[in-house]
Amino acid sequence: MTTTGRPLRVAMIGYAFMGAAHSQAWRNVHRFFPLELTPEMAVLVGRNAEAVQQAAATFGWAETATDWRAVVEREDVDLVDICTPGDTHAEIALAALAAGKHVLCEKPLANTVAEAEEMTAAAEQARARGVRSMVGFSYRRVPALALMRQMVAEGVVGDIRHIRGLYLQDWIVDPEFPLVWRLQKDKAGSGALGDIGAHILDAAEFVTGHRITGVAAQTETFVKERPLPGDAGTGLASTGGAGTGTVTVDDAAVVLARTDAGALATFEATRFATGRKNRIVLEVNGSKGSLAFNFEDMNSLEHYDLAAGDRAGFTTISVTEPTHPYLEAWWPAGHGLGYEHTFVHQARDLLAAIAAEEDPSPSFADGLRIQRLLAAVEQSAGAQAAWQQV
Amino acid sequence: MTTTGRPLRVAMIGYAFMGAAHSQAWRNVHRFFPLELTPEMAVLVGRNAEAVQQAAATFGWAETATDWRAVVEREDVDLVDICTPGDTHAEIALAALAAGKHVLCEKPLANTVAEAEEMTAAAEQARARGVRSMVGFSYRRVPALALMRQMVAEGVVGDIRHIRGLYLQDWIVDPEFPLVWRLQKDKAGSGALGDIGAHILDAAEFVTGHRITGVAAQTETFVKERPLPGDAGTGLASTGGAGTGTVTVDDAAVVLARTDAGALATFEATRFATGRKNRIVLEVNGSKGSLAFNFEDMNSLEHYDLAAGDRAGFTTISVTEPTHPYLEAWWPAGHGLGYEHTFVHQARDLLAAIAAEEDPSPSFADGLRIQRLLAAVEQSAGAQAAWQQV
Amino acid sequence: MTTTGRPLRVAMIGYAFMGAAHSQAWRNVHRFFPLELTPEMAVLVGRNAEAVQQAAATFGWAETATDWRAVVEREDVDLVDICTPGDTHAEIALAALAAGKHVLCEKPLANTVAEAEEMTAAAEQARARGVRSMVGFSYRRVPALALMRQMVAEGVVGDIRHIRGLYLQDWIVDPEFPLVWRLQKDKAGSGALGDIGAHILDAAEFVTGHRITGVAAQTETFVKERPLPGDAGTGLASTGGAGTGTVTVDDAAVVLARTDAGALATFEATRFATGRKNRIVLEVNGSKGSLAFNFEDMNSLEHYDLAAGDRAGFTTISVTEPTHPYLEAWWPAGHGLGYEHTFVHQARDLLAAIAAEEDPSPSFADGLRIQRLLAAVEQSAGAQAAWQQV
Amino acid sequence: MTTTGRPLRVAMIGYAFMGAAHSQAWRNVHRFFPLELTPEMAVLVGRNAEAVQQAAATFGWAETATDWRAVVEREDVDLVDICTPGDTHAEIALAALAAGKHVLCEKPLANTVAEAEEMTAAAEQARARGVRSMVGFSYRRVPALALMRQMVAEGVVGDIRHIRGLYLQDWIVDPEFPLVWRLQKDKAGSGALGDIGAHILDAAEFVTGHRITGVAAQTETFVKERPLPGDAGTGLASTGGAGTGTVTVDDAAVVLARTDAGALATFEATRFATGRKNRIVLEVNGSKGSLAFNFEDMNSLEHYDLAAGDRAGFTTISVTEPTHPYLEAWWPAGHGLGYEHTFVHQARDLLAAIAAEEDPSPSFADGLRIQRLLAAVEQSAGAQAAWQQV
Repeated sequence: MTTTGRPLRVAMIGYAFMGAAHSQAWRNVHRFFPLELTPEMAVLVGRNAEAVQQAAATFGWAETATDWRAVVEREDVDLVDICTPGDTHAEIALAALAAGKHVLCEKPLANTVAEAEEMTAAAEQARARGVRSMVGFSYRRVPALALMRQMVAEGVVGDIRHIRGLYLQDWIVDPEFPLVWRLQKDKAGSGALGDIGAHILDAAEFVTGHRITGVAAQTETFVKERPLPGDAGTGLASTGGAGTGTVTVDDAAVVLARTDAGALATFEATRFATGRKNRIVLEVNGSKGSLAFNFEDMNSLEHYDLAAGDRAGFTTISVTEPTHPYLEAWWPAGHGLGYEHTFVHQARDLLAAIAAEEDPSPSFADGLRIQRLLAAVEQSAGAQAAWQQV
Repeated sequence: MTTTGRPLRVAMIGYAFMGAAHSQAWRNVHRFFPLELTPEMAVLVGRNAEAVQQAAATFGWAETATDWRAVVEREDVDLVDICTPGDTHAEIALAALAAGKHVLCEKPLANTVAEAEEMTAAAEQARARGVRSMVGFSYRRVPALALMRQMVAEGVVGDIRHIRGLYLQDWIVDPEFPLVWRLQKDKAGSGALGDIGAHILDAAEFVTGHRITGVAAQTETFVKERPLPGDAGTGLASTGGAGTGTVTVDDAAVVLARTDAGALATFEATRFATGRKNRIVLEVNGSKGSLAFNFEDMNSLEHYDLAAGDRAGFTTISVTEPTHPYLEAWWPAGHGLGYEHTFVHQARDLLAAIAAEEDPSPSFADGLRIQRLLAAVEQSAGAQAAWQQV
Repeated sequence: MTTTGRPLRVAMIGYAFMGAAHSQAWRNVHRFFPLELTPEMAVLVGRNAEAVQQAAATFGWAETATDWRAVVEREDVDLVDICTPGDTHAEIALAALAAGKHVLCEKPLANTVAEAEEMTAAAEQARARGVRSMVGFSYRRVPALALMRQMVAEGVVGDIRHIRGLYLQDWIVDPEFPLVWRLQKDKAGSGALGDIGAHILDAAEFVTGHRITGVAAQTETFVKERPLPGDAGTGLASTGGAGTGTVTVDDAAVVLARTDAGALATFEATRFATGRKNRIVLEVNGSKGSLAFNFEDMNSLEHYDLAAGDRAGFTTISVTEPTHPYLEAWWPAGHGLGYEHTFVHQARDLLAAIAAEEDPSPSFADGLRIQRLLAAVEQSAGAQAAWQQV
Repeated sequence: MTTTGRPLRVAMIGYAFMGAAHSQAWRNVHRFFPLELTPEMAVLVGRNAEAVQQAAATFGWAETATDWRAVVEREDVDLVDICTPGDTHAEIALAALAAGKHVLCEKPLANTVAEAEEMTAAAEQARARGVRSMVGFSYRRVPALALMRQMVAEGVVGDIRHIRGLYLQDWIVDPEFPLVWRLQKDKAGSGALGDIGAHILDAAEFVTGHRITGVAAQTETFVKERPLPGDAGTGLASTGGAGTGTVTVDDAAVVLARTDAGALATFEATRFATGRKNRIVLEVNGSKGSLAFNFEDMNSLEHYDLAAGDRAGFTTISVTEPTHPYLEAWWPAGHGLGYEHTFVHQARDLLAAIAAEEDPSPSFADGLRIQRLLAAVEQSAGAQAAWQQV
């Protein structure tokens, strides 16, 4: 017995950290949200036949394959979900779009602006044929961030003057942590900047509706040489092997920015904020109030309403009410969600858009926009923080 | 393609709030935890054929049935999961155990001590035949509470002098909220006391290892007459219909207690703590330190270590490290879990125990013990807080 | 050059922790608040001539004396400020009132209800002669608690159903901490109960306007034998000397209560809450909202407004606005106050009342009321938590 | 009766917000700290004879004067305390130093680097004659910040990689707030930058021991025209009068920086962070741990110790223990201090240094250093965030 929606057959490429999170989404989204399209976990793709079979058994995919090129051409695949490192995003996405498959691509969209431009152009063309594409800025689907955007759009904070964004992690503070792919420029494109800076830049624009018009930035690689990885390693954990190699990406990036609507902004993305495991902070201060979000308390949103006079203060809204974004599907108020739910919500929005024959958001064009911001940050950082118009 | 564990066929009775949470557990547990037994969502049981079919489609159960008596006898059912109101727990559990099925029973175990005693005796007998039973004190599976227990057991806080437990909700503050089954003594046994007080009493004993030896208590029903429910209502939400009825359970209970190891304890369970959606607080103060948990920040545990001298303070441990209880299965550090994960962990522990031919915990005897505490609280409350030995 | 108010000459008896705090108040109150009466720090009284002279030099008192009986009779003394242990409150206050001196007496008012009754009767008689008296429940003068009372009185939280009060300290967790006077019943009357429990009981009634009508309680002395004190010791610090003695007061008290307006209440006072240095928590939940205070964040008040619907949440009001109680005298918003300011505010309220020929609050009658509550708690605790009407 | 230290006669110039805070310090410092030198509040100086007399009466100064030039020459004045707007700092300080008076000068030291250089040179010369000078970076005297510095110096956090400093206020969010002197460049030198940015830059260098070597910055004036002030206005409050004028200072400044020890830093100072009354945040992340301070919780310090492994977390140290900086003088643990205590501590350190014939810290040279940082920030902001070496 399954839900009655039409099936939408998904092929997913990659099965590490993001693959696990996406699998959880495909497996459960239709169990909570009423959908016209029901995802089928059709094919899992990876280079290592044995490993991909084990992953498919674990995650619940019906089939496996090792050649993504063949899979994206299959008639019985409707959507390609790209969970690989950034260096393969463009090639896979272009092939999938050309084959008429809907595409969900993990962020950052690509490793270069040129790739992202090509992907965006292809997505535009595919769109004319009813093929949908989306980039995986999953944090947009944290209910509290979605509510924050909604409240900004309602005018609750008035004109925004300040944007303050932080994405702080600490998983490579130990200099013995090995040189995994996320620390290699050819695989990952950049370091903290593209991996987590991309999220906070996207979140800032998503929430405020402002567009960043210029940046000044600095980046740093604190640990320049690391042990080569001794194991496959998945997610954000690994152990060191023999020999060392050079870290070719940034460990941290700090950014000043201005927006088209007159706000001053600061951003920071780092993997060296000891003790901050996955701290994503976004605060906006406006003429009528402020809003502040912290992923460490992901089920809450702080709101300051200037109009409340001497009874004002930051109000901790428990974003668990059925009237809050995505919450109609879940538990009673106060029974919070976790990290993985953002992926369920992402799948829901994508499936709903495909069913409605509408473009899902964020589009590849949105991904390209962030790519350009990342490039501007790198350029500024390489030029002693010289201002870069975007 | 599925995981390779032997199948364990589950029949679940009830499909409201708890049914949804348990379904999520059965659907996903083997996708994260390596298990010898893989649950199969075989049969969903409910009185209303149409409603149960819809629920089964939504949650992903293979079959439905309306007669639980027939289902618990079925050869192709291995485990019966009881998610009904408390007035039917005993009857179903006794039948299931008699039929040789493993049983998972929601808390509180029963509506009376007598029922709980009968169930516990039956479970003891069934156990001799290799039949396992467990009561669903799911909050034991919050990783932070499991870590709290572990740290107490390690002696981290020394001799515990104070236990402070709160379970605060506010979903019936509105006097127009209707008279749902949870507000009716014949269905629910008691009100805040059995529904949420049971959890905090169990959590306190689970974490500390102490046993409560006596209580003094008061209970109150603040809103004594409510509209009759106008809809089926599920979970903790409903709307009022025509006419009113009398609330026959407590809205709130406050308790003083002493333990066998010399601690003073206070407990409070209420549905009238306006603004506290699902606040579960447990703090213990010992001779060497303290530990404090708050479900509103469920991925954290506070620890005070007296030995740290003038550098001491409450340390907020982010209970998201792979070495923390249950966390080896989930996301990188800092990517927190939500409410429903407690049910996944519960399913994991139950399946592991069945596979290992061991008794899962908490047992029906543990459920009976809480039932006796609840009875003592009610007796004291009915006798002007007179002390009740337990 | 001094402020222009008429002088009011103060004699203070006792010069330890409370003496230092009161001195700070008398020295500064008129520098911040416009007052008709300007306190003069006239005479400091203590048994040890040398020690009292040193204290007077430190604190800024003009004269010293060793015989309080002579001092309370002096023509050039207008107000007697009693900062001694509880066993001498009654004797000194009665003499001072008889001599026509205004009296400020530290809490608890006395060591027994009988003493408190005699003091209250004397205060009533003195009042007819224009002599004012006040008991030092200084926490009433925390601006956030004063605002909390004001908001309750405005009806902001509606009908209060729950009161939750904690006063947690940990300064005697170490069993080697010596047997100071606060641990001796003949000096202190009781332990945590009278020392800090008195504050939280008073704060609860002050804020809510409710009157406690009955209590059930338990008390405990966790460490029954302690080293005799090796030094004079002041405040809450001391070191041990030779030999040991028996602790004759409670270390902790837990209380259930009901109020005349239908609320259920819980209270706890302890010196064994490891890591909680001076945690005073008061929360009330009402039909329209909630208010919560925590002295560890003394410049804030939490307010939940049910009417805000799905944008509701606990609002952290920074109680530092000039329109908040007592704040017109201090610093710009956000520049918080400290512990000692409560004594400045207490002095201000007392001086203003004397100048206005009005009765200051809390009166000796208020102190007596708390004394009766303390006695009821002790009685209940001595009778296995049997309910005591108050 | 006074304390027995030798008197040190103070003349204070200015009597608004800072004058009130400094008066509180001079009045009380010797009542808490044992000092060889006892301050005498000798002369208060202001241009308006009547207003200064009223202020002196309120604050407790013995005499008043309107001509600061005469006062700094007086034989019976030992120390000149400069609490005027920045445009007069240089002139007064130079005259006072020339007259051989010790000088305490509010921050920022001056309105220009040139003035600050002249003052620093004069201070150096005066020092040879035993004349001491100090600049009033009072937040260094918050016990938690002093402890933070001490812990960094002990190596507790290892090599610091990140510094994050915020000073957020909101007192001019209302566009009708008038054009007080702090919003005029000729009086105040700069806006948020010099007023509060100076504090956070100084605090960052004070705590870390790092020296900022370069900056990129942007500043903004969000409200460019404001009502002229209708009253004298003091502190951070005022009301508008007739007509409007142009705001000639920055409302906000954002800064990227690098330090001589390899850290990346970000700073922000703003008066437009709606709801943030006086939020001063300083966080450092190092190779062994992190420390974080927030003035809104000024009696606490957060410490993360990487060595604690999976029991690590941010520890909230209650900086109220007698062994913590400045705390030996105050109340028992947990009885927190307020904003004004920083000035008492500043007076204590200055008086102790003068008595010991040592140079107090921060010196005028330290003030000059911050002045250069402020100038570099302004220069960068005026050149599209171009990097400025310092």
